[in-house]
Amino acid sequence: MDKALSGVKILDFSHLLQGPFATQLLADMGADVIKVERAGAGDMFRSMTFFAKWVGGSESPNFLAWNRNKRSIALNLKSRKVHALVMRMAEQADVVVQNFRPGVLAKLGYGYEDFKAVNPRIIYCSGSGYGEDGPYVDRPGQDMLIQGLAGLIANTGRGDAAPVPAGAGLADQIGAMNMVYGILSALYYREKTGKGQKVEVNLLAGMLAHLGQEYVGVLNLGEDFVRPNSGIGHPGMQAPFGVYETRYGYVTIAMSPFKTLYQVLEAPHLAVYDDLETLFAKRDEVWEKVNAETRKYRRGELLEKLLDADIWCAPVHDIRAAAEDPQVTHLGLIASYEHPKAGTVKVIGPAVRMSETPATIDRPAPLVGQHGREILAEFGVPADEIAALEAAGDMTVAEA
Amino acid sequence: MDKALSGVKILDFSHLLQGPFATQLLADMGADVIKVERAGAGDMFRSMTFFAKWVGGSESPNFLAWNRNKRSIALNLKSRKVHALVMRMAEQADVVVQNFRPGVLAKLGYGYEDFKAVNPRIIYCSGSGYGEDGPYVDRPGQDMLIQGLAGLIANTGRGDAAPVPAGAGLADQIGAMNMVYGILSALYYREKTGKGQKVEVNLLAGMLAHLGQEYVGVLNLGEDFVRPNSGIGHPGMQAPFGVYETRYGYVTIAMSPFKTLYQVLEAPHLAVYDDLETLFAKRDEVWEKVNAETRKYRRGELLEKLLDADIWCAPVHDIRAAAEDPQVTHLGLIASYEHPKAGTVKVIGPAVRMSETPATIDRPAPLVGQHGREILAEFGVPADEIAALEAAGDMTVAEA
Repeated sequence: MDKALSGVKILDFSHLLQGPFATQLLADMGADVIKVERAGAGDMFRSMTFFAKWVGGSESPNFLAWNRNKRSIALNLKSRKVHALVMRMAEQADVVVQNFRPGVLAKLGYGYEDFKAVNPRIIYCSGSGYGEDGPYVDRPGQDMLIQGLAGLIANTGRGDAAPVPAGAGLADQIGAMNMVYGILSALYYREKTGKGQKVEVNLLAGMLAHLGQEYVGVLNLGEDFVRPNSGIGHPGMQAPFGVYETRYGYVTIAMSPFKTLYQVLEAPHLAVYDDLETLFAKRDEVWEKVNAETRKYRRGELLEKLLDADIWCAPVHDIRAAAEDPQVTHLGLIASYEHPKAGTVKVIGPAVRMSETPATIDRPAPLVGQHGREILAEFGVPADEIAALEAAGDMTVAEA
Repeated sequence: MDKALSGVKILDFSHLLQGPFATQLLADMGADVIKVERAGAGDMFRSMTFFAKWVGGSESPNFLAWNRNKRSIALNLKSRKVHALVMRMAEQADVVVQNFRPGVLAKLGYGYEDFKAVNPRIIYCSGSGYGEDGPYVDRPGQDMLIQGLAGLIANTGRGDAAPVPAGAGLADQIGAMNMVYGILSALYYREKTGKGQKVEVNLLAGMLAHLGQEYVGVLNLGEDFVRPNSGIGHPGMQAPFGVYETRYGYVTIAMSPFKTLYQVLEAPHLAVYDDLETLFAKRDEVWEKVNAETRKYRRGELLEKLLDADIWCAPVHDIRAAAEDPQVTHLGLIASYEHPKAGTVKVIGPAVRMSETPATIDRPAPLVGQHGREILAEFGVPADEIAALEAAGDMTVAEA
C-alpha cells in the first residue's frame, strides 16, 4: 500500500464539474474510482468545451481536466437488471458520489436509503447547487449563478463598470473540495465506528464559506463593500493593495508597509497618505499616484526593486505565461497523460505533496464505458451476463 | 463520539488565512485544535481588517471569520523551555499545521523531523505561497499575488479594461481546502498503517489545480483566452453565458439552449446567431442584443420568466442581500457565536451536512492565549511550572 487512499472503492455517478473534480482528487490519492456514465453519450461534460474547439478533434478539455485516474462503465440506470447489478457492486463499495439535481437519482432507486439497505457502511455524498430542500430546490444550480447569488460577482470588478464573475469555475471546484472534506471526514469516522452516513454538499454553502471574512465584515461592521474606481484589488482593502501597470504588463502589490513602498519608488510626496484611514478613504487617488510611478518601469525591473525591499508583489501572467513561469515548472505542475483519442494531453498535476504516499497520474480520462467489461468481471459478474447486458443496450463500451 | 473527527488533536502553529481556515474546517468536524500563537500579540491576522474598522471596537473580522472552535495558547517559541514543552505535547498530538515562510519554523526546532523524532505517527502539514523549494522559495506568497501569477486575474474582467482579482481571498481558501484534503488523506492512511507523514501544500499549486480546465484548454487547443468586451462571464465561453442588466440590478444567465432563451425573450431576430461557432465568435454582439431585451424587465419578473422555461439564471446579490436570500436563510448558513469582546458575531456556518456527525459551532474565536493554562494542565504540566512560564513572559494569557 503506497497510496493514501488505496483500497477505497468509489461508485461515482457524478457528471459535469463538482463531482468529477472531487473524485479525481480522491483517485489521485489512490482510491479506485468507477465512473458510472449514461450508456451511449456518457457524462454531459464530454459535449462542452472552450473556444468551440475540441482536443484531438473530438475530446472536451473540460472533461479531460477532471477525469484522470478513473475507469468508466456506461449503464442504462433505468434498467431493472442494471439496478440489481449496481446494488451488488455497492455491497463492496465504500463511497457513492452523485450530483444530479435533488431527487433525480433517488427516483431511479439510487438514493442513500437504497444503498444503505445493502451496505450500512456506505458513505453517500450528494452535491447540488442549492441544497436538497428549500425554496430553490428545483432551480438549476451552476457555478456562475452561485458566484452571483453568494456575493462574489458583486465584489469583483471596478465600481464604475458592471461587476464580473471570476474567470474560472471556482464555485464548482470549491464544491468539489467540500465533497472531499465531507467524504474523508466520514471515512475517518467509519474507521473508528463502522458507521456510514450521508454527506450533503451544495455550491451555495461552499461559496458562502469562502466569502467568510467578507460576510463577517459586512454583517458585523455595518459597512457594505463598494467596488473601487481604480485597480485596488478588493473592495474592503486600502491602498496600495491592487493591480498596477508597468511599461509592459501588470503586477500585483499586496499589503506592505506603505512607507517602504513610496521610498523604494522614490516618491516621498506619497507620505501624506500614510495612515490606515487615509489609505482606505483615498485609495483610488493613492492608486493613481502609485500607478504613475510603477508605469515608469519595465516589469522585471520593478519586481526586482520591490522584492529587494520585501514588498509583497508578483507578475500578472496569462495562462500560457504562467505555464512557463520558473516556479511552476520547478514544481512540475504541468503534467501530461496519453489519451487514446486526444494524444498527449497536458494537465495540471496534483497540488498536494505527500512524503510517504505521493499522488500520481496513472491513467488518462476514460472513454465512455471503456472499462465496463473488466469492472463487471472484477465484481464477479459472469461473461454471459455481461454480454446480455450489452446486447440489450443496457451497457455500452467505447473501444480505445 | 458524535463528531467525525472527535479525538483528533491538532497543534496549530498557523496564522493569517490558509492554515487557520483549514484547522477551523477540521475543528468544525470535532478535532481538538490548539492554536499556538505568539506570546503577546498573537496571530498577525488579529491586526488586519476591512474598512479600517473593528468589530466591538477591537476585533478583526478576518480573524473572527477563521478561528472559531479553537482554543489558544500563546507561547514564546524561542524559549528552550517552551520548546521542550511543545515536544511533550506533540507526543500526544495527531497533526501539526503551520504556514510560516519555508524554513522559519524548522530553524526554531519545530520542523517535521523534530516532531517525527518524538512521535513518528505525527502528520505534519506545512503551507506556503510557492512551495518549499525552487526559485521563489524566499518570496512573499499572498492570495492576490497567487491569483495573478497563476492566471486567474488575467482571466477576469473585461477586455477593454485592466484585469481584476476575484473579490475574495480564494487562493488562500483553496490552499486551506488542500490542507484538509492532504491531512485527512494522511489520517486515513495512518489508520491503516500506523505511519505518519509530511504533507506540503502551496497556494500556487492549489490555484493552478482550480484553473484545471482553463489550462487544459489553452495548452491543448492552441488558443489563448481573450477577455470579452461585454458582460460575457468567462473568456472561453460563448454567448449567452454572462451577466445581464435588468431595470434594477443584474442577473446571471448560464449555458442554456439559445433558442429557448430568445423565444422566452420574444426576440426571434436572435435566431441568426444560433450555432456554437457564431455564439462564440460574435459573443459580444450577442450579449449586447440579449442585454437590450433583459433590461426591459424588472429583475424578479425576468427571473420568473426564465426559470419557468428552465433557463439557468440567478440574481446577482451583494453580500447583505445574499445574507437575506430565502435559500441562504432556509439553509441556516448565517450563524453566530458570543465573543467576550466583540459580542454577538455573525459568521458563516459549516458548509457540509453530515447525517450522523453534524458539524457545529461550539466556541467563538479565542482571545490570545486564553486557554493556555487549561491546555497545559490537560497535558499534565504542573501548576508551578505553568506559573513559572508566565512569570518569565514565555506564556501570555488574555483574560476573557
